[in-house]
Amino acid sequence: MSLINKNSALNALLEASLGTVTTQENLDEATIRNGVDAGSMVLLGNPNHTNVRATLVGRPATIKVNANIGTSPMLNNTEREMKKLASAEEAGAHTIMDLSTAGDLDGIRTAMLTKSPLPMGTVPLYALAKKRMDADCDPTDFEHQEFLDEIESQAKQGVDFMTLHVGVTRRAAELAETGGRVLGIVSRGGSITARWMARRKEENPLLTHWGEVIEICREHNVTLSLGDGMRPGAGADAGDAAQWEEVIVLADAGRQAREAGCQVMIEGPGHVPMNLVAEHIATMKRIVDNAPLYVLGPLVTDAAPGYDHITAAIGGSIAAMSGADFLCYVTPAEHLTLPDAADVREGVMASRIAAQAAEVALGRPEAVARDREISAARKTLEWDRLTAAALDPLMVEHRRGEHKTEKECAMCGKFCAIRMLDGTL
Amino acid sequence: MSLINKNSALNALLEASLGTVTTQENLDEATIRNGVDAGSMVLLGNPNHTNVRATLVGRPATIKVNANIGTSPMLNNTEREMKKLASAEEAGAHTIMDLSTAGDLDGIRTAMLTKSPLPMGTVPLYALAKKRMDADCDPTDFEHQEFLDEIESQAKQGVDFMTLHVGVTRRAAELAETGGRVLGIVSRGGSITARWMARRKEENPLLTHWGEVIEICREHNVTLSLGDGMRPGAGADAGDAAQWEEVIVLADAGRQAREAGCQVMIEGPGHVPMNLVAEHIATMKRIVDNAPLYVLGPLVTDAAPGYDHITAAIGGSIAAMSGADFLCYVTPAEHLTLPDAADVREGVMASRIAAQAAEVALGRPEAVARDREISAARKTLEWDRLTAAALDPLMVEHRRGEHKTEKECAMCGKFCAIRMLDGTL
Repeated sequence: MSLINKNSALNALLEASLGTVTTQENLDEATIRNGVDAGSMVLLGNPNHTNVRATLVGRPATIKVNANIGTSPMLNNTEREMKKLASAEEAGAHTIMDLSTAGDLDGIRTAMLTKSPLPMGTVPLYALAKKRMDADCDPTDFEHQEFLDEIESQAKQGVDFMTLHVGVTRRAAELAETGGRVLGIVSRGGSITARWMARRKEENPLLTHWGEVIEICREHNVTLSLGDGMRPGAGADAGDAAQWEEVIVLADAGRQAREAGCQVMIEGPGHVPMNLVAEHIATMKRIVDNAPLYVLGPLVTDAAPGYDHITAAIGGSIAAMSGADFLCYVTPAEHLTLPDAADVREGVMASRIAAQAAEVALGRPEAVARDREISAARKTLEWDRLTAAALDPLMVEHRRGEHKTEKECAMCGKFCAIRMLDGTL
Repeated sequence: MSLINKNSALNALLEASLGTVTTQENLDEATIRNGVDAGSMVLLGNPNHTNVRATLVGRPATIKVNANIGTSPMLNNTEREMKKLASAEEAGAHTIMDLSTAGDLDGIRTAMLTKSPLPMGTVPLYALAKKRMDADCDPTDFEHQEFLDEIESQAKQGVDFMTLHVGVTRRAAELAETGGRVLGIVSRGGSITARWMARRKEENPLLTHWGEVIEICREHNVTLSLGDGMRPGAGADAGDAAQWEEVIVLADAGRQAREAGCQVMIEGPGHVPMNLVAEHIATMKRIVDNAPLYVLGPLVTDAAPGYDHITAAIGGSIAAMSGADFLCYVTPAEHLTLPDAADVREGVMASRIAAQAAEVALGRPEAVARDREISAARKTLEWDRLTAAALDPLMVEHRRGEHKTEKECAMCGKFCAIRMLDGTL
C-alpha cells in the first residue's frame, strides 16, 4: 500500500512542510515518509486550515499534547474560549480540540481556525446533537446523511482531525450495559451513539457509512481520530470486554481507512489503575497495527476531583513511556466544571511534564539534554540559564519573586547545599 | 532478636496505641507486632511528644505522607511556619518535619511539638550548623559531642524521628566528587557532613559515634531516618556509585540500630528518571533488609521547576507501587523558594494522590473502595456523596462554585454522558 500516493492533500502538505518537520523532530525525511506511509505516524494539517502548522504525531516523533477547549451549555462565552485558545498556545500545546456544545458552533470553530495555526480537532457528532436539542428534539434525531454532511462541512472549514466513535457498536454498547460496569459509558460521543442505536435498533451510522466518511476525510486530509466511546470512566471498569471490543473494531476501521489513503489515530483509555496502564497501551498498539495512540489521561485514581491534571500526568507519563504518542490534557476542572484559561495553562503544563518525563525515560536526546541543561545551571546557580531551559520560564520567574536577585534561592539561602561545597562560602 | 523488648518506650507506645492503630490500618495485632519487631514497620512516637499520634510506617500499613516545613534564612517568620503546620494537618499529612534553619530553632520546634499531634521529624545537623553560622564561624566547626548533645536535646524535646546522614562516608563523598556527577551533592545534610569530613580529614562523626546515637534514640523511641545525603539531584546522576555506596552503609547502620532496639527508616533517592524508579526502590528495599523506605519524590524530570509537586507525584506513585512506604511531599516551590501555606496544601494533596494511586494499583481494599465509591456517586450524580469520598472535599465544593445546585456539572451540562443514557433526559 502507499497511503501518501492515495492522498494528494497529504502529499502536498508533506512536500511543503518536510523541511520544517525534519528539523523540528530531528528525523530524516525517509523516516518521516515511511512512517506516514505505513500509518505509524500521521501528519496533521487540512489544506483548508490556512497557515496550519503541519504536526507529526507517532513514534519516533516527539510526544504531542492536545488541549480541549470549547463552550458548554452552562458556560457559553466565545470570548472566554478564545482566551483559552491563547492560553493553550502560550503554554505550549501542539494541538487543540474545539469541543463546543453551545452557541454558534460554526462561528466559534471558524474563528478558532482563523486565529490559530495549531491543528484543530472536533467531535462532529456534538454539532448534530446540539441542533436537535436546540430544537427540543431528541439529540439523536438525525439521519445518516446529516452526519456525513456535518463531517464534510467541518472538513471544508479546515478541521484537521475529527473524533469519530466508529467503534461504538451495538455489541460494544450491550457489553457496557450488561458487563457489570460501575459507571457505564462516560464518553459523550459514545453515549449519544449508543442512544441513537438503541432508539433506531440500527448499527452505528459511522460504521455502516464508513467508506463515505473515509472518502470525505481523505479528500481534505482530515486525520481520523477513532474515538474511545467505550473508555472506562472508573478504574474499576478498566480493561473490560466493552473496551476491548471497541479497540478491535477501531483497528479494522483504521485498516480500511489507511488502505483508502486516509490517516488514522486511535484514542485510548480514560480511567486506568497504574498497574494496568503499560499493558493496556502495549496491547492497544499491537491490535491497532502500531497506529499513533492518542490518550486521555489515563487517570490512575478516581478519588482526586480537582486535581485530575495530576492523576492524568501520572497515567500519561506511564502511557507515553509505554507507547502512547499523543497526550490529551486533563485540567484541574475535569469532572467538576468547564476549565478557565488558568486551568488550560495548568493542564497543558501537566501534560508537557508527563511527556518530558516519558521522553527522558525513553532516552530521547532532546529531552535528556534539556534535563541536563537545567541540572548544569543548578550546579553553577545560573538562574537565567535555568529559566530559559525550564518547561515554564514564566513560572520560574514568578516563583523566584522578590528574591530573584539573590545568588541562592529562598528555600535554603546560605544553607545552600551547592554553595556549601563550591568553595565560595 | 526482639526489637520491641529492647525498647521500653516503644513497648509502652505499642501497648497504648495498638487498639487505635489496628483499626486505622485494618491490620491485626500480630501483624503489627511482628512487623515492628522485625523492623519492616516502625511505630513513630516519642513519649516526650505529649499527645503524639502513634503512626505506623511500612508495609503492609498504608502509605504515609510527610510535609516539610520550617524557616529559611531569607524567609524567617515563625507565624508563617505555624500556618504551614496547620495547612499540612488540614490537608491530611501524616507527619511533618521541621527543617527550620533560621530564628529560634528550639522555640519553633517546641511550639510545633506542643501544637501538633503529628509525629515530627528534624535534621539535628541544621541546628549545629546554624549556631556556627550565626557566630560567623564555619558551619562545620563543631565537635562530636556537640552533635550527640543536640540529638539528645531534641530527643528530650519530643522529636519523633531524626534524619541522620550516617551514610555520607569519606568514600561516598569522594565517589560523588570524582564520579562525573552533573550536580554533586544536593542534600544540605550531606554537603555539611562532606564539608566537615573534608576540613577535618576524619570519617563521618555519626558513623564513628553510631552506638551512642543509637542509645540516645532508643531511650526516647526516636526513629532513625537514615538520610540520603548522596541522593541524586539530577536525573543524570541517578544510580551512580556514590548513591549505592551510601545505601550499603545505611543498611549496615540500620542493622546495628535494630539489633540495639532502635527503630529505623531509610531515606530514598531524589531525582530519578521514570524507567529507573521501580528498580531503584526494589534494590534499596533488598539491600536495607526491607526497612521502611522514605522517599523524597522521586522527581522524574529536572525540567519542571514550579511544578515539582507533579514530577514528585509521578515518581512517588511509581515508587509507592514498587515498595516505598512513606512519601515526603514536594511542593510547587521546590528548587525556587520556601513554600507558603498554599504550597504546603498542594504538596500534601499531590503526595496523597500518589499514595492513593499506588494503593489502588496494589489492590489495597480501602483505596479500591474509595475509588469505587466516587465512581458510584458519579453514576447517580450524587454530588454530596462524591464530595465526601474525595481526597479533597473542600476543592470539590470550591470548583463546583456557582453551579453546585445543578444536577449535572458545568463541563457538559445537558450534554452529560451519564444522563444521555439514564432515561432521565
